[in-house]
Amino acid sequence: MTPVGIGVIGLGRMGRVYALHTARQIDGAALVAAADPDPVVRAQFSAQLPNVQMLADYRDLLALPQVEGVIIASPTSTHRDVAIHAARAGKAIFCEKPIALTLTATDEVIAAAEQAGVLFQVGFMRRFDRGYVEAKRKIDAGVIGDPVTIRSVGRDPHRTSLEFANPAVSGGLIVDMAIHDFDCIRWLMSDDIRRVYAESAALVYPELLGVGDVDTALITTRFRHGGLGNIEVSRTAAYGYDIRCEVIGPKGTIEIGYLRETPITVLTREGVTHDVVPHFPQRFGPAYTAQIEHFVDCLLHDRPPAVAPADARAALQACLAATLSQQEGRVVEISEIS
Amino acid sequence: MTPVGIGVIGLGRMGRVYALHTARQIDGAALVAAADPDPVVRAQFSAQLPNVQMLADYRDLLALPQVEGVIIASPTSTHRDVAIHAARAGKAIFCEKPIALTLTATDEVIAAAEQAGVLFQVGFMRRFDRGYVEAKRKIDAGVIGDPVTIRSVGRDPHRTSLEFANPAVSGGLIVDMAIHDFDCIRWLMSDDIRRVYAESAALVYPELLGVGDVDTALITTRFRHGGLGNIEVSRTAAYGYDIRCEVIGPKGTIEIGYLRETPITVLTREGVTHDVVPHFPQRFGPAYTAQIEHFVDCLLHDRPPAVAPADARAALQACLAATLSQQEGRVVEISEIS
Amino acid sequence: MTPVGIGVIGLGRMGRVYALHTARQIDGAALVAAADPDPVVRAQFSAQLPNVQMLADYRDLLALPQVEGVIIASPTSTHRDVAIHAARAGKAIFCEKPIALTLTATDEVIAAAEQAGVLFQVGFMRRFDRGYVEAKRKIDAGVIGDPVTIRSVGRDPHRTSLEFANPAVSGGLIVDMAIHDFDCIRWLMSDDIRRVYAESAALVYPELLGVGDVDTALITTRFRHGGLGNIEVSRTAAYGYDIRCEVIGPKGTIEIGYLRETPITVLTREGVTHDVVPHFPQRFGPAYTAQIEHFVDCLLHDRPPAVAPADARAALQACLAATLSQQEGRVVEISEIS
Amino acid sequence: MTPVGIGVIGLGRMGRVYALHTARQIDGAALVAAADPDPVVRAQFSAQLPNVQMLADYRDLLALPQVEGVIIASPTSTHRDVAIHAARAGKAIFCEKPIALTLTATDEVIAAAEQAGVLFQVGFMRRFDRGYVEAKRKIDAGVIGDPVTIRSVGRDPHRTSLEFANPAVSGGLIVDMAIHDFDCIRWLMSDDIRRVYAESAALVYPELLGVGDVDTALITTRFRHGGLGNIEVSRTAAYGYDIRCEVIGPKGTIEIGYLRETPITVLTREGVTHDVVPHFPQRFGPAYTAQIEHFVDCLLHDRPPAVAPADARAALQACLAATLSQQEGRVVEISEIS
Repeated sequence: MTPVGIGVIGLGRMGRVYALHTARQIDGAALVAAADPDPVVRAQFSAQLPNVQMLADYRDLLALPQVEGVIIASPTSTHRDVAIHAARAGKAIFCEKPIALTLTATDEVIAAAEQAGVLFQVGFMRRFDRGYVEAKRKIDAGVIGDPVTIRSVGRDPHRTSLEFANPAVSGGLIVDMAIHDFDCIRWLMSDDIRRVYAESAALVYPELLGVGDVDTALITTRFRHGGLGNIEVSRTAAYGYDIRCEVIGPKGTIEIGYLRETPITVLTREGVTHDVVPHFPQRFGPAYTAQIEHFVDCLLHDRPPAVAPADARAALQACLAATLSQQEGRVVEISEIS
Repeated sequence: MTPVGIGVIGLGRMGRVYALHTARQIDGAALVAAADPDPVVRAQFSAQLPNVQMLADYRDLLALPQVEGVIIASPTSTHRDVAIHAARAGKAIFCEKPIALTLTATDEVIAAAEQAGVLFQVGFMRRFDRGYVEAKRKIDAGVIGDPVTIRSVGRDPHRTSLEFANPAVSGGLIVDMAIHDFDCIRWLMSDDIRRVYAESAALVYPELLGVGDVDTALITTRFRHGGLGNIEVSRTAAYGYDIRCEVIGPKGTIEIGYLRETPITVLTREGVTHDVVPHFPQRFGPAYTAQIEHFVDCLLHDRPPAVAPADARAALQACLAATLSQQEGRVVEISEIS
Repeated sequence: MTPVGIGVIGLGRMGRVYALHTARQIDGAALVAAADPDPVVRAQFSAQLPNVQMLADYRDLLALPQVEGVIIASPTSTHRDVAIHAARAGKAIFCEKPIALTLTATDEVIAAAEQAGVLFQVGFMRRFDRGYVEAKRKIDAGVIGDPVTIRSVGRDPHRTSLEFANPAVSGGLIVDMAIHDFDCIRWLMSDDIRRVYAESAALVYPELLGVGDVDTALITTRFRHGGLGNIEVSRTAAYGYDIRCEVIGPKGTIEIGYLRETPITVLTREGVTHDVVPHFPQRFGPAYTAQIEHFVDCLLHDRPPAVAPADARAALQACLAATLSQQEGRVVEISEIS
Repeated sequence: MTPVGIGVIGLGRMGRVYALHTARQIDGAALVAAADPDPVVRAQFSAQLPNVQMLADYRDLLALPQVEGVIIASPTSTHRDVAIHAARAGKAIFCEKPIALTLTATDEVIAAAEQAGVLFQVGFMRRFDRGYVEAKRKIDAGVIGDPVTIRSVGRDPHRTSLEFANPAVSGGLIVDMAIHDFDCIRWLMSDDIRRVYAESAALVYPELLGVGDVDTALITTRFRHGGLGNIEVSRTAAYGYDIRCEVIGPKGTIEIGYLRETPITVLTREGVTHDVVPHFPQRFGPAYTAQIEHFVDCLLHDRPPAVAPADARAALQACLAATLSQQEGRVVEISEIS
């Protein structure tokens, strides 16, 4: 079977990860082209993968007939235009999260993909992590009964740059981080969010306030069918990268996550010690690969992706509601955001 | 040194625990009397501890000169009258939590104790648990830096009786359970609570709605100096009794709690398994003893107790604010409750 | 019911533990007398428990009619004489391990107890630890199938005094420590030991060689019905007190033991850390009490103890065989020791 | 830089693993050829990797000039001839463990490689596992002081085929499994083994006795400089694949290993449960890749491999001594095997 031709648009941190995974680890796919406006980045990447066609302008990449699917990893502000172009060019689209910072732009992208009839998948890699997948399977199998409460924690070991923290660039802490949590709690609870309340603060990095951002947010949610949820997102976890989720049902509870990187334990007079997961590549490396495998698999077999465009929209909507709650200090109904 | 004479008022579940601990395990104390209106309860207790004077009316107990301190473990609705009587009788007072269901009654009790100049301690046993004590010590020693965020989880394995669940009797889920969490988060953060928001629901026991109670509440708090807090209290933990607290600072995090009762692990084809803590006597047994030891010690050496009356008042105030938030679906400032 | 009168002989470290537990925590027992030749020890103890009759000579204690049972916690070298006296005085006997350092003396004690028809229990407290008890219950319930292999680890955080290490006093490392392991592996495997091989060395405390002792011994055993066993005893565990046992069967494995004292976990840049169990009182405190409760219970209800005298003999025999193996560098059949 | 040409000899289970890893995941290497006498195996493999030249006879592969290094994964009985041929052909050699079942054949292979001046590495993948690597680093950094005792456990979830169990084919349980443990304990202790004693039995699979093998062996070792070691190898771990090692020093202990495959924990009334590692690909997959990366790296930069041929010889010698001890029921000095 001829491998599917993939092009990567944007060779920043995530773009390079996707490109290397696609080139080396994905059965049935071939990385045929990559686009980035920065000539230095292009030169570095060419040295690593000399057989991949390098382009400055993503529109030239979209014009290549051998490119059947694209991975959009350019800055969030460009996602809308790139994705609409890609859809019109008839390419299957994998888009790094978030699709956009507004519901309007998100809806335009989704509409363009639907109109063009192209595959459209968003980068919610937690859905492809072994822990989350197995938890979902156990919940669906009734191991804990119908889940009633969910708690999701996402902690980064340090803040982002102040440039990125700017809500105009990243959407702010909640949009940037909690979009994963909102997607996961909707998915694991099989329910939609009805209302949210967020408290937030810049507790460790007060300089974030200067650009309109915070380092910690605690979000309480009520689901449409009555269940409760709690999300913590923060950038203050000096000890490492800590992503956890706990789903509580009438028959038991499932906890997802782990806090150990190297399989050794040291016992001294100071106590029992092991290391922690330093950052996301160590925690979600295989999930990043698995979601591209899923994308390629859907493309090869003409199947809809496990993560629907509507899921990406709903997660963004919840983030925007929580951000509004954070700003106005009041409970916000999801329906206020449209 | 002559042991301090202790009387126990109320021989329900907690009263019997306190009485037996005092009789057997507390150095420097002697259980000299106990009062309970139920003759069957008195007869059973006399069989266990024949040397203890049994009384039907607590006022007779308060009249005994050999009783220097009393442990009030009668129903919450009686605490106010019993405590005021005890204070006027000049007895040192250990009062099971909560002092009362209203701030007014709480204030009357505290005023009576102050006026009489008697020792007054409230039953916040978590403050005497080895885990909480060591966490507080480490926080004060700067191990994690000044704490910025705190999360407290309290889960009971099943609901209480509908009679007890009635808010008129127990104060409702938040007053009954979260009073411990509010005390702990104030203590560990060394800060007061400024405002709260609570979402709650009767997710596993819908019959609780009929008596005006719920089985799950998620409470978000903002502290006066800016820190954030989250409390979950629930009665849906089919798997056991689960009390946890996590304190996050700029240099690290401390987690308090454990989920294992018997020190064995079983490994079979089904996986790796260990048991859980079934309920509070297994989790906090030594802490219940330690707080009475502290009470006796304060009495012997004329020292103020580690848990100040103002702490009990503040925890109740936060519970009442969270209960109001739960009822009205809005953020409540602590100052609204007075 | 009148409590059983107990006398404690020897108020060294273990004797004081037993005496205090008996005085305070054992239902149905009363500590009525204690004997120790050291007047300073007697004075200290009298200050703590003024109602207990203090005697210099254990024979005076044995003469008291109100003493129904004795706890022998005097130096090992005196056990034989004290126990035979106690048996002849018709007292029930709880004897700290080992009964004696030779099989001959052990047999004399057992014979005296049998002849007098008195209850005789040896201080194998691990059999009363919740972990060991539950593991035995699960094994007997078939959870792992018929066990085939067992591993037992006993680690002390530091060496004993050189005086005590002297094999003439303590029997040496294997007799002093591994007697617990040999008892447990026989009990949990429901089998007798057939042969042993021991390697040993003084690896951290070479000064032990000067008194004829070692700090580490690894012992391999074959059971009579074919199963295999391994014992490690050592005094080099700088990190704490570490007692573990693992029982392997065709359907699974059970691990006994734990390595955490305080229920908190600290997460910093240096990793995830918790403390360890410092020494035996923290690990086996409740088991020490439980075995005396069992002794009192057997005495009250005229029942044989769970630990038979023959078990104590068999564990010593295995220790002596392992010590011979250690000395001669060869495999030793248990039957060589008689 | 032109990638190094690699040929794989033998496409059984391990051969296919090595071939796929080399083809896809090793930077700087290209899989150019593979040899297997079975045409069905060759056809299957060609379908997976169509660009790799397939050969029936390994000698044809050795004749290819573009093959610079070979991975020998053919049956153990053929290793000697293949390796000597490869050495004479001037190819760098990576040989799956063991080199051979006798010291004589092992020495012939090592001599051939030395004479030809070719790189020679043996498949001790544990040395490339993150846990073992980090433990070694910490030991060398003095974290636990100079190690004095080591314990290594290797458990397979079920027995091999009776054909393979036959000592003439696999060398028997100890040679087949404990060769990894002997290599690791020598490496981590930085010491040679002086004598061994092994007890073994067929406890769960008595049918193994019919072909001269066992399912469990407990081996005690003494090191040349006095340290002690213990190895358990077994095929009775119904619960999964369990590889652990513990190194004890005067300042602390390091434990290597883990028993969890999926990062979720389930808490129900039955207890707290997580899964286990099912078998070696899940446990050591990355280490298999890392050792080939090391081989390629040594080849590219003309460096000696981290695992010296003498290490492979010493581990086999210890296995043969332990097997003799198992057969004769006595302590065996390593020097007896030559």
